[in-house]
This record gives sequence, C-alpha cells and structure tokens, in this order.
Amino acid sequence: MAVYTLVGAEDAAAFLEKYEVGSLRSFKGIAEGVENSNYLLETDKGHFFLTLYESRVDPDDLPFFHDLLGHLKSAECKVPAFIADREGNWLQQLCGRPACLIEFLSGVSVSQPNPQQARAVGQALGEFHLAVAAFDGQRPNSLGVSQWRALADKCGRSALEGIQTELADRVYKELDLLEKNWPDHLPLSVIHGDLFPDNVLMLGDKLSGLIDFYFACSEIRAFDIAVTHAAWSFSSDGTRYLPQIGTALFGGYDAIHGIDDETKDALPWLFRGACLRFLLTRCYDWINTPADAMVTRKDPLAFLLRLDFYSDPANVELITGRKA
Amino acid sequence: MAVYTLVGAEDAAAFLEKYEVGSLRSFKGIAEGVENSNYLLETDKGHFFLTLYESRVDPDDLPFFHDLLGHLKSAECKVPAFIADREGNWLQQLCGRPACLIEFLSGVSVSQPNPQQARAVGQALGEFHLAVAAFDGQRPNSLGVSQWRALADKCGRSALEGIQTELADRVYKELDLLEKNWPDHLPLSVIHGDLFPDNVLMLGDKLSGLIDFYFACSEIRAFDIAVTHAAWSFSSDGTRYLPQIGTALFGGYDAIHGIDDETKDALPWLFRGACLRFLLTRCYDWINTPADAMVTRKDPLAFLLRLDFYSDPANVELITGRKA
Repeated sequence: MAVYTLVGAEDAAAFLEKYEVGSLRSFKGIAEGVENSNYLLETDKGHFFLTLYESRVDPDDLPFFHDLLGHLKSAECKVPAFIADREGNWLQQLCGRPACLIEFLSGVSVSQPNPQQARAVGQALGEFHLAVAAFDGQRPNSLGVSQWRALADKCGRSALEGIQTELADRVYKELDLLEKNWPDHLPLSVIHGDLFPDNVLMLGDKLSGLIDFYFACSEIRAFDIAVTHAAWSFSSDGTRYLPQIGTALFGGYDAIHGIDDETKDALPWLFRGACLRFLLTRCYDWINTPADAMVTRKDPLAFLLRLDFYSDPANVELITGRKA
Repeated sequence: MAVYTLVGAEDAAAFLEKYEVGSLRSFKGIAEGVENSNYLLETDKGHFFLTLYESRVDPDDLPFFHDLLGHLKSAECKVPAFIADREGNWLQQLCGRPACLIEFLSGVSVSQPNPQQARAVGQALGEFHLAVAAFDGQRPNSLGVSQWRALADKCGRSALEGIQTELADRVYKELDLLEKNWPDHLPLSVIHGDLFPDNVLMLGDKLSGLIDFYFACSEIRAFDIAVTHAAWSFSSDGTRYLPQIGTALFGGYDAIHGIDDETKDALPWLFRGACLRFLLTRCYDWINTPADAMVTRKDPLAFLLRLDFYSDPANVELITGRKA
C-alpha cells in the first residue's frame, strides 16, 4: 500500500503526450497495489491509471499480462486494457521503471459481499476461464504446489512456531498430503490466481471489473475456483464460513462454465492447497515484515482456519454436493 | 504519504448517502497528506475528497479551517470548500475519526515551476491575504518564533550535531538573533503558512487551487511571503536560488497586495525565520523518523542552505529592492 517511485507532474504530463488521451488535469498517487506504484490520472478525455512496475514484477512477464488482458477484453470480459501510444507502444520507461498506461474502470471493492455479488464473481470467473481457453500465452506458476515446501523451509520451523504453536508440524503434514494427492490430471488453464474482493470492482450488485492480474499463470484451472471460494466465502479473520456467499459463488461459476464430477471430487485438495498457498505466503510476509512497517501485515492464521474448514469432508460436500 | 485509517467501500457508500452528491462509483485511497487519510471518490455527479483527520490535527481546529475555506470561497479564492450534508453538517464521524467531504479541484502540483506559475502563486497569496482581511477567525501559531527554541531543545544538541557538525551552534545563534530582531510590529493576518508547490494546483500556467490549509494560523502576514518565497524559489535541495522564480513570485504578490517599505525592511528576518522554522521541523522529523520507515524524510539541510542565502544582505536586496 504505497507509492514507491515518485513521479513529478511534469514527467507525467510529458509521458501522456505520447498518447492520444488528452492533457493532464489531475494526478494522484494511489495507496493500493502492493507490487507496483499506481497513479490515477485525469485528463480532459477521461481517467487512466499509470502503473510503474517495481522490483516484484518481472518486466519479462509484462508481454504475457498485456496479451492476456487484450485477449480477455476482445472476449468482452470486464478487465482493464493496456493502452498503446500513438506509435503502438504499450510499454514505456518512466523514472527508471517499466511503466504502462492502463484503462480506468469504475467500481468499488466490497468488503462484505452479498450473495448477488458473490454469484457475479463466480460467473465472471467462469467467463474468464471460457475466454482464456482460446488464449495461448503461458506463464509458469511460481507459487504452485511444487514450490510450497521450499517456501515453508524459507519461513523456517521456529519462525512458524513463533506465529502459532505446532504450526510447522501442521504445515509439513499438509504438504505431505497435498504433494501425494494433488490432482495433476485436471485440465490446465491460465488462472487469475488472486481473485480476492480487493481485485474485483462492483457497481451496486453488478460486477464492473476484474483487476490485478499480476499473479495470473498457467495452473490447474479449478485451482482458481478454490482460491476465489476461499477468498470470498469467509469472514475476513477466517472464523466464520458464509454459506450463502460460498454457494452463490460456486453456483455462479457452475452456471457459466460447468464443474464436472472429476473436478468436484478433486476440489477438497484444491481448496486445501489454496489455503496453504496463502497461509505460507502470508507467513513469509509476516516473518519478513517489521511489525512497525507502514504496510498492513495480513494475518496468516485466517487461512489456517479456512484450511481447517475445508479439511472436514462434510463441509466440502455442502459446497460441491459430492461425498468425499 | 499514506492512508492511516482503512475505510471499506460499504462505509464510504453509507457515508455518501447523507449528502446530495450522487452515488459511489469509485473510491481510492490517496498517497498524499502526511497529516490525514485521504480518499478520492467518484460519484455519478463528480469527484470529491473524503478526509479522515488523524491524531496530528486537533478536531477543535476543524471549525476554524471550515470557516476559513468558506470565507475564502465566498471571496472567489480558488480553494476547496467543505461540503455540508442534507442536514447542514459538514463534520462527521467515520471509522472512529472526524471526517469531512471536501470539494475536489483539478490541477497538478508542479515540481519545477516556471516564472508564469511563480507569479500566479504570488498573486494568489496576495488575493488570499486581501480576502482574509475581513475574516475574524483566529488560530494561534504553534510553530511561531516563540516556539522555535523549545523545538530546538526537543531535537537536542547532540542529535542536531549528528545531522551536521556545528548545526546546533548555528541554530542557537540564529535563534538569539531572530528573537531579538523579530518584527512584531508588522500587521497580523491569517496566513497559509505552508504554501509549498505540493499545496498549489496548476492547470498549465494557471493556478487552479490552493490546498492543505491545516497549518493556517494567525501570524505576521508577511511571514507567509517569506515561507512561500523560500518554498518555491530554490532547487529542492536548496543549493541553487532561482532568481526568475523568486522575482516573479514576489512581483506577483506585490502587484495584487502591495508590500510596503516597512515590510520590505523586515523581510530579511522573516526569510531567515521561515528557513529556521522548516529547518527545525525537518530536523525534528529526521531525528524521530526511522531511516527505513515508508515515509520520505525531507532533508533539513536544504533549509540551512536557504538560511545561508537569505543571511546575505546582498541577496535579499535583489529580492526586495531595499538596502539592508
């Protein structure tokens, strides 16, 4: 939550002159986007985002993100397109950083979704998966099942125990189970991979945008269902499952894309994997972020509680309708 | 540069319902305003700022700021007005903080002003001073000459020496001189007190807004000229005086408001006082902000260099046209 690279108004105005988007009227650094520096620009023709990519985004991945969003946009998914300048360039350098001008989408991120909104998210994820079936870009998942053990090792047993007693044992037991039972036979796809409420824009109960595709990668398609379900269907501290939200989201996806029985039968492991992925990345960030830093550390244990929930076959049966 | 209080979209939408400003379409935390949490809101009727006042702004001062901006607005100064809700309330509580909806002004803050822009700033400051002559609100200056010695003591001699050798001696010698020569006989006024380029919005060479009045207070009126001149007329590191900028700014003010000889003769001390005020507050922040904090520490020595500049009578004569 910060602006890492300070861009002067003169630099922004000169940057905009490459584009046919009007002249600068307002320019504000936005306190969102852990990975990048984001500015909201107003010109006499509309609103735009200026994103400067910081060290956590590999510039070599930018063509993948550009092509993906262009493909999704053509397929009428509600995503923000990269904007090309007069010469057709969509990737620039600004203040020493790779920088792009990106379409602005109206809408707000809800913190307490209602079932209509959850259904809309499931539908939009289904539409996204249908659209990317014809997209041939690829990007390896650097946070997939084969990386989780190394991530746990990087956290370290004692640091994990420092977060919660016996957390390390629990993590390594879960890793053993997931590595053994991971449903590698399921179809792959490009997934969003991080479709939390923060990354969805709503106008009332209507979805107006899916944003922040910087974790998009090639992965088991249904892993995206698991991530999105886990991200939306709980109180944010993970203590309460919200059945109306979970059911609406799952049903919305199923109505658009369909979920076959083979996928449903594998979902318990995908749900658990999704929880472990966010548990581990949050543990890593927790351990490596000073408590007094001006970034919000997200509580890893909120995903341990979700992991507990999905580890109970009766709970998963309520979601998928299939006996474990 | 941060958002300190996180406001959910639902809270923001409910907040807006009190007002006749349309319904929420977008809602972004803004990375500006050291003192407050600021959100930029888009509704179907326009753009607005939502400001939550954090601990550094005394809620008891808010009526002064509200009345001041209302007065300036009526006098056609380009300032953002506080917006009242349907029941006439302009001050609310949101997420446990005092919160206000404030008019959005287009424009950008320039980092390398040209003479036209500097002249516009001088003129706008002159218009502001003419307008507040008929304003009867008062607010003591908590960062005035009588507080500087205590501020230096709070920094501490050794910490000051840690910033630069012999800095403490220089500060205390300057304090002795300023306390002895301070031009208390000059007319008082409400001043802006912090009219740095950050706090001025421009559309091209035209001034579109003066913002961030949270240091506004009752003070020697011409101290505002000194602060503004020191803030605009140097390279930001303080190493180079920009004579075209300084002359344009001073001339712009003089053309609108006039600067009498008594004031011109006192300006050397006001310039030096303005430099010492920002030198001391920046030293204090420097000493009390961890080097790795995610806020930008502003270099105190940039104002020591300005102090050196204004301490040379020949330099001040170039600005005021009066022999010291």
